[in-house]
Amino acid sequence: MTQGAATRYAPLPAKLTLHAGGVLPNGRVAFETFGVADRTGERTILLFTGLSASAHACASTLDPTPGWWQQIVGPGRAIDTDHWFVICVNSLGSCFGSSGPTDTDPQGRRWGPRFPTVSIEDIATGGWHVLQHLGLARVHSVVGASLGGMTVLAFAARHPGAARHLVSISGTLAPSTIAIGLRAVQREAIERDPVFLDGDYPPERPPRAGLRLARMLGTLTYRAPAGLQRRFGRKRTNGGFDIEHYLALQGERFADSFDANAYLQLSRAMDRFDLALDGDPARAFSAAKLETALVIGVEQDLLFPITDQERIVDALERAGVPSQFVRVASDEGHDAFLLDLAPFDAALRRHLEPEAITHAR
Amino acid sequence: MTQGAATRYAPLPAKLTLHAGGVLPNGRVAFETFGVADRTGERTILLFTGLSASAHACASTLDPTPGWWQQIVGPGRAIDTDHWFVICVNSLGSCFGSSGPTDTDPQGRRWGPRFPTVSIEDIATGGWHVLQHLGLARVHSVVGASLGGMTVLAFAARHPGAARHLVSISGTLAPSTIAIGLRAVQREAIERDPVFLDGDYPPERPPRAGLRLARMLGTLTYRAPAGLQRRFGRKRTNGGFDIEHYLALQGERFADSFDANAYLQLSRAMDRFDLALDGDPARAFSAAKLETALVIGVEQDLLFPITDQERIVDALERAGVPSQFVRVASDEGHDAFLLDLAPFDAALRRHLEPEAITHAR
Repeated sequence: MTQGAATRYAPLPAKLTLHAGGVLPNGRVAFETFGVADRTGERTILLFTGLSASAHACASTLDPTPGWWQQIVGPGRAIDTDHWFVICVNSLGSCFGSSGPTDTDPQGRRWGPRFPTVSIEDIATGGWHVLQHLGLARVHSVVGASLGGMTVLAFAARHPGAARHLVSISGTLAPSTIAIGLRAVQREAIERDPVFLDGDYPPERPPRAGLRLARMLGTLTYRAPAGLQRRFGRKRTNGGFDIEHYLALQGERFADSFDANAYLQLSRAMDRFDLALDGDPARAFSAAKLETALVIGVEQDLLFPITDQERIVDALERAGVPSQFVRVASDEGHDAFLLDLAPFDAALRRHLEPEAITHAR
Repeated sequence: MTQGAATRYAPLPAKLTLHAGGVLPNGRVAFETFGVADRTGERTILLFTGLSASAHACASTLDPTPGWWQQIVGPGRAIDTDHWFVICVNSLGSCFGSSGPTDTDPQGRRWGPRFPTVSIEDIATGGWHVLQHLGLARVHSVVGASLGGMTVLAFAARHPGAARHLVSISGTLAPSTIAIGLRAVQREAIERDPVFLDGDYPPERPPRAGLRLARMLGTLTYRAPAGLQRRFGRKRTNGGFDIEHYLALQGERFADSFDANAYLQLSRAMDRFDLALDGDPARAFSAAKLETALVIGVEQDLLFPITDQERIVDALERAGVPSQFVRVASDEGHDAFLLDLAPFDAALRRHLEPEAITHAR
């Protein structure tokens, strides 16, 4: 489910000035919570998602459908909802309940391509407003992977003291050239779809072919060659290679679920993200009052190469934040945090369990 | 130049049965030659190209424009046309003079999507017919990179004894899953272009947007992340990232020069190529009467990973062909044979010079 019975909403300020300079009027951020509510924030984990996920991280009583991180979040899982109060946030600019291009503007028109430019920093601030809404000044950990792994860095830089610990998985301080290039191709696929109409497609006639093509390519960039080879090899079914059928299926599913303007917003936000733009990111982290950080990267990641995570650790350590760096070797590439869970499970347990045990006493 | 004053043509048999079962009537293969003609073949090098190149490997008196391998082929170059007679062949199914989808069928209609299915094996046989046309039964070396690096393997397997030596650069016995997937996305970009019209676009209105998109992605797959990072980084010009401008430029150039149906033919031919389909490729090489082989691969190649070239060497050695394997480390990735020439230059000189010196005596 992308928005369901478990979805809640936090209001944004009546006029939220965005990082790129635009103003978002009367916005909101969709979120879900898991576990028993926490008044102090001591037991709270704030979770940011990847590009295409909703706030539904795992099944709950209100919404029993499996979530995007079903194997990691839940009772007895690495992020154990028997202990932790988990808040998962739908990214601002996305299309699963938070304000975004599929909403209507104050004049009642669909925002579409006129939705003000959203930056990763704004997604982070969206999460911060959810905490305000819930009366939480400070949480135990802020956690995210992929786009979420970038967002947690922006969160620490913009909201010092709002999180004691940070977990950034397969993130970056600033995307690499090949990541920008691959996303540029994906955007071009959408923008050149003749029914895209410069973003003013009617809701019932979205640029499906462009979205499908963008996701076919995305799927390849989220994986690593060895994993694809082992799973699909050169096998064929009905004339086509199995990898072709698989990509087409992923593309169709995505075209059925995601809005093209929202996709373009988040895609561009990722490219523009550069925590070093205002100087050494270690300066930002120095002021963030982080007690520790956990950074995880995958050696086979094409899209967020492990050198990106090495730079995160370097900046954190220069900022005096005690940091642990976990290098994962996984043929699943960037998507390892969704597909090859054991090393992430183990690293998250090591990060979270000592605290959980301390609290239980 | 793609077809110019230097282009020559060799006829194919009136009815050429193609590897996939179709029949090509009254076909021809375009080629160019460089250096002084050779009657025996002892001084002859047969050169196959990558997907998008023409037969114009280097400048000549008849056509002084630079060729696609200008720094490697020519007087005093690694493939020294002061000594060697070089024949470069335009791939069958391409659009630079050899029979392909832009030609007319026997009824005078444009072949377009009805051009019979071309396989890598047919491209190899096209080169063999050029040798027949020139009266050469056996050449010193058959050389190719990328698609050409696959074609030389098919040439050796299908035309035993026609080459004494083989040089396969960044080739494969059978493309990997990620290579198939990336090409599937490129084909989808073309086939979904609304002016593609199932391949029956009028010549004056080709699916430029699709070709452009396919080449933007192709360009990224031909390079390696580190090389792109060093060259483009996160630099911006006029609002866009330099990598975006560069990809757009490459896409435009390609859309101006290449035919969409020809592209699809060659793209599919690469995917289907599998020299192991009829059993162990070592068997094919055993019968090929090769005296030596030189195989070159690039460790950073995403599209033709170096494990592909390791398998070529393994098959050649099991076939009893003395083989040299040169591993190149280059941040240029698959395109290193065009952009990072020194290691290829050196390996080709080592392969060719002893013979050149022997002949000079």
